[in-house]
Amino acid sequence: MLSRENNELLTRVGPGTPMGNLMRQYWVPALLSTELPRPDSDPVRVLLLGERLIAFRDTAGKVGLLPHNCPHRGASLFFGRNEEHGLRCVYHGWKFDVSGRCVDMPNEPPESNFKDKVRARAYPCVEAAGIVWAYMGPRSEPPPMPGFEWLGAPDEEQDVSAAQVECNWLQTLEGDVDTSHFGFLHVGHAKPEDAPEDSFLQYVIEDRAPRYKVLDTDFGVMYGAYRPIRSHADSLYWRIAHFMFPFYTMVGVGVLGDKVSVAARVPMDDTHTLVMLSRLKRNYTSSKADGLGITQRTFDGRRFLPTTADWYGRFREEPGLRNDFFIDRELQRSGASYTGIDGVPVEDRAVTESMGPILDRTVEHLGSADTMVIRVRRRLMAAVRALDEKGVVPPGVDHPLVYQQRSGGVVLPKDADWVEATEHLRRAGVDHADLNPSTAGGG
Amino acid sequence: MLSRENNELLTRVGPGTPMGNLMRQYWVPALLSTELPRPDSDPVRVLLLGERLIAFRDTAGKVGLLPHNCPHRGASLFFGRNEEHGLRCVYHGWKFDVSGRCVDMPNEPPESNFKDKVRARAYPCVEAAGIVWAYMGPRSEPPPMPGFEWLGAPDEEQDVSAAQVECNWLQTLEGDVDTSHFGFLHVGHAKPEDAPEDSFLQYVIEDRAPRYKVLDTDFGVMYGAYRPIRSHADSLYWRIAHFMFPFYTMVGVGVLGDKVSVAARVPMDDTHTLVMLSRLKRNYTSSKADGLGITQRTFDGRRFLPTTADWYGRFREEPGLRNDFFIDRELQRSGASYTGIDGVPVEDRAVTESMGPILDRTVEHLGSADTMVIRVRRRLMAAVRALDEKGVVPPGVDHPLVYQQRSGGVVLPKDADWVEATEHLRRAGVDHADLNPSTAGGG
Amino acid sequence: MLSRENNELLTRVGPGTPMGNLMRQYWVPALLSTELPRPDSDPVRVLLLGERLIAFRDTAGKVGLLPHNCPHRGASLFFGRNEEHGLRCVYHGWKFDVSGRCVDMPNEPPESNFKDKVRARAYPCVEAAGIVWAYMGPRSEPPPMPGFEWLGAPDEEQDVSAAQVECNWLQTLEGDVDTSHFGFLHVGHAKPEDAPEDSFLQYVIEDRAPRYKVLDTDFGVMYGAYRPIRSHADSLYWRIAHFMFPFYTMVGVGVLGDKVSVAARVPMDDTHTLVMLSRLKRNYTSSKADGLGITQRTFDGRRFLPTTADWYGRFREEPGLRNDFFIDRELQRSGASYTGIDGVPVEDRAVTESMGPILDRTVEHLGSADTMVIRVRRRLMAAVRALDEKGVVPPGVDHPLVYQQRSGGVVLPKDADWVEATEHLRRAGVDHADLNPSTAGGG
Repeated sequence: MLSRENNELLTRVGPGTPMGNLMRQYWVPALLSTELPRPDSDPVRVLLLGERLIAFRDTAGKVGLLPHNCPHRGASLFFGRNEEHGLRCVYHGWKFDVSGRCVDMPNEPPESNFKDKVRARAYPCVEAAGIVWAYMGPRSEPPPMPGFEWLGAPDEEQDVSAAQVECNWLQTLEGDVDTSHFGFLHVGHAKPEDAPEDSFLQYVIEDRAPRYKVLDTDFGVMYGAYRPIRSHADSLYWRIAHFMFPFYTMVGVGVLGDKVSVAARVPMDDTHTLVMLSRLKRNYTSSKADGLGITQRTFDGRRFLPTTADWYGRFREEPGLRNDFFIDRELQRSGASYTGIDGVPVEDRAVTESMGPILDRTVEHLGSADTMVIRVRRRLMAAVRALDEKGVVPPGVDHPLVYQQRSGGVVLPKDADWVEATEHLRRAGVDHADLNPSTAGGG
Repeated sequence: MLSRENNELLTRVGPGTPMGNLMRQYWVPALLSTELPRPDSDPVRVLLLGERLIAFRDTAGKVGLLPHNCPHRGASLFFGRNEEHGLRCVYHGWKFDVSGRCVDMPNEPPESNFKDKVRARAYPCVEAAGIVWAYMGPRSEPPPMPGFEWLGAPDEEQDVSAAQVECNWLQTLEGDVDTSHFGFLHVGHAKPEDAPEDSFLQYVIEDRAPRYKVLDTDFGVMYGAYRPIRSHADSLYWRIAHFMFPFYTMVGVGVLGDKVSVAARVPMDDTHTLVMLSRLKRNYTSSKADGLGITQRTFDGRRFLPTTADWYGRFREEPGLRNDFFIDRELQRSGASYTGIDGVPVEDRAVTESMGPILDRTVEHLGSADTMVIRVRRRLMAAVRALDEKGVVPPGVDHPLVYQQRSGGVVLPKDADWVEATEHLRRAGVDHADLNPSTAGGG
Repeated sequence: MLSRENNELLTRVGPGTPMGNLMRQYWVPALLSTELPRPDSDPVRVLLLGERLIAFRDTAGKVGLLPHNCPHRGASLFFGRNEEHGLRCVYHGWKFDVSGRCVDMPNEPPESNFKDKVRARAYPCVEAAGIVWAYMGPRSEPPPMPGFEWLGAPDEEQDVSAAQVECNWLQTLEGDVDTSHFGFLHVGHAKPEDAPEDSFLQYVIEDRAPRYKVLDTDFGVMYGAYRPIRSHADSLYWRIAHFMFPFYTMVGVGVLGDKVSVAARVPMDDTHTLVMLSRLKRNYTSSKADGLGITQRTFDGRRFLPTTADWYGRFREEPGLRNDFFIDRELQRSGASYTGIDGVPVEDRAVTESMGPILDRTVEHLGSADTMVIRVRRRLMAAVRALDEKGVVPPGVDHPLVYQQRSGGVVLPKDADWVEATEHLRRAGVDHADLNPSTAGGG
């Protein structure tokens, strides 16, 4: 439970807000590279941290990210001409390059030097792993990019996707670090014998009330959620997962050491979030959970609405609050699905968006299963306050290597120290091909 | 005319408002029983006095009314599983019974007693006359149910219907106690010879400017609106009708002593009202007004929109402000209809909703025909203030028998005392089969 | 660039605002006469300066403009019966004539004199040049009508049209006095050889960076924008145009002395504007700009949406922000159009509406080409403050003849005094049939 003030502190991200300032310390995933498919392709509207921006790819292939309104008289650069190394406002022909410099001002007399006095506040952009990253912060020299291992992987290994969630970023992130919901929202209808023999999924279904360990780290917070295994009385099944500043998660699904996957929960504004999911393709082909209907299909077969002419028109999925996520009450009643809602990510959105645009955290009741949620909030609040009050640079901004992490599930002896015993598996950049394939089931 | 402050006082009904507190002293009609057709049927969204609630019928047939957001982390219980005597949140499997007790918390370890510390604020519900009634007030033991005579009638006699009006509750209620509008809005186009000979309707058309008597009562306010009768110079036609705390009306249509009918104008929130109309079937089969096109058909042939996935999706009618109530200007011009709008209740909604979401009562001009409107407001304000300032329990809460009333029309000798002369006809529970059928026309 | 306070001062027009008060000093174009096609035709919703009004034409053909809500209990007079010299509210039959007098109150007893105490605040209306003009100001005797020359022209000469712009009035007006945008937004794709030989349009395309002269006048502000002509080294091409209090413009398109055309940018409310364009038919048939695709067709072939049942339902065009004005990116890229948007007025709306409902003028960068925009704002602010602080009647209110002006283009010797040399051409009411037809091209 939070005070109203702390809930505001954590959820508001616009310019000038404390949390908005914290996020602006980091490089921020802004859009997919594929949204700007070619040099001089069409400009794209981007709503990011409450700011209305126009992204474009110039003739040389470089990406620019400018304020939506032309610095001259405020016409939208969305309607601009993207031509010869710059975006030209159609109102008076002013043209800006990706750095925000005004490179042409043809409605002013040739002798005018007004052009040199005008500058659009362009946000520096870099592309990596199929994502356009922007730096919206105060430094003249941006900090290093986060050191995620997948940023260096070859293009054909990359799998990046985006989806809009119609609520505040924090409640979407809290769903990621809330491991116990998996046993209900997604597989609450299943019995142990439905799962592959001796799979993580089977362990989850055998015991849906995991215990938690949480640990502050240099990248954020790590948790280990553990439970007994019926068939191995001397072992425990651990799900190890991370919150990483400012809005990343590595979830506990899959096999620790093998899986490379990160979700960025990027605020579009206070009530809309763009979730970007980056995975390396080699990691998620081993699911044995097909029998439960939570196969990869549930991630890949998603239905998106056409992009619309407004600030919320990108990556909106068809199932939504507006149609009760197409809930099938008979299916829910039948026991073949816990929710009657089709697809794991859609189930996640259903509960998350149903909380309201910004969850009221003053009336919650958090239990032991919410240990990680609580710790993440505390860590965020502490970092926001340290920046706001003392100018302390938040975790990871200047230390890209802290992001070199992996998450996932592992079986450990009952008396093992979970942190020590998993140290080498959590290390990024290592090939763990020798992992026991029998534990590689989804879940 | 009211001050801005008094208009706010009368119209705002959310938690913590003075009028909201007054209404929460009473049992409140919340939804129709048919909205929860079977044990373990689908949960239903209910917006009531500005609160977002989920109604469900449990395995034993009992109705629960819980806050929309799960007490745990706020996911909507609308998506919950209604199973085995409780509604289970699909996020983490927490389950609540109709009393709000958390009866299962399967994501917490078995030794946890957190379950016993969590409680949803359930509102006690009872069902009567096809309506689910809720008590949302502060007493641990709710007051008695209102003593309406139809609450005790057999099911096959009950006729209850619901319709949403898209504006504040008070302006919908004021329409009910505004007898003079009948002669214009509904039958303004008619001539005396159009009506059945010697019917109430004929009297209304003969004299459209009734005089008013109003009287404070123990249930609220009663009025008698009277007018001369051309063919009976020594008699007066009286329409006797009631406002009953906090939002009920018994209108003056029909025959006093014979008719049993009550309208509840229940606020969904400040700008939406659910009108529930309860009638006993025996009462309204004698209309002679067919010639005027205001037959029962106009009440029964209503067109509703499909229920939608939001808080305003129930019992919304198709004709609305969004389509000008399908006004037919040629019909209006022709004289065959005063309004060009089809249906008495639709005409009522047209004028009422056209006032705006909350009528601005600071710029009205009330005449003698508004005597009852004025008195009802005064009575409401006095009760709201008495409760707010001195904790005075408002009228009727602890005295259910005050609701044992009837309303309707009657012909009295010119010199009769209207209150005394109608005392036995206004008494509930009496069979008045000997009433003169010749005066039983609609109007 | 403006302070936030000044931007508010200039853009807010509701009752009681300083700019709203200024506009209410003048006669205001409220609707087209054709919207009330016959005596006793259907009432029409009119949103004007933030006020919700109902317009009707009575049996004698006179136009009334009443508050939307009946003075009695607030039902909308939109649903009223327009009959026998008055508009009758269908709720209780109260009837008002065009002067706001209550001429019938049939639900009150005949002896009541309440009728004489009730009055609707009707705004005086006159019709001229196909427009219904209203006076919404404080004087009991309205000021004279503005002395535009076309107000006196015969009906068959009049050409008046209306279109809604979905943003604040001031940014729509600023587009009119911003001559340099023509060379980009509308003809930025064209080369000099595309234009008719020796036409104004050719001069515009030859030099897209005009210089400005501005001059305060008794009607508002006049500008002269000039540029050299390649083929006539000793001459300059001047575009002369006007801002006229409080929201009129005469633009610089066409031939000075020949053209009679005025645009009124009338605020519906703070974020919607009704543009009424009045022209005399003889003036705009000589366009030679067909080769550029900016023919008269682009003005006449506009697509409007059906009128809807709300306050914004009149004269809304189909292309809009909601569909990106049907921008054709391939056409824009091809060079056949600067914008890819079809139609000069649609291009204007695209940039103007894309600025947002109310342009934030605190972050602009105004250059020498914005000299007129700056001057108009200053003039407006000075007049608003003079009225607000000292009660000074604003320009033109009591001096109708100041509106006797013409605007347009002209070729002058390089050393000519532009004001003096054009004096006779700017004078209204003169027949300049002897003008050189070779310079009559569009632009």
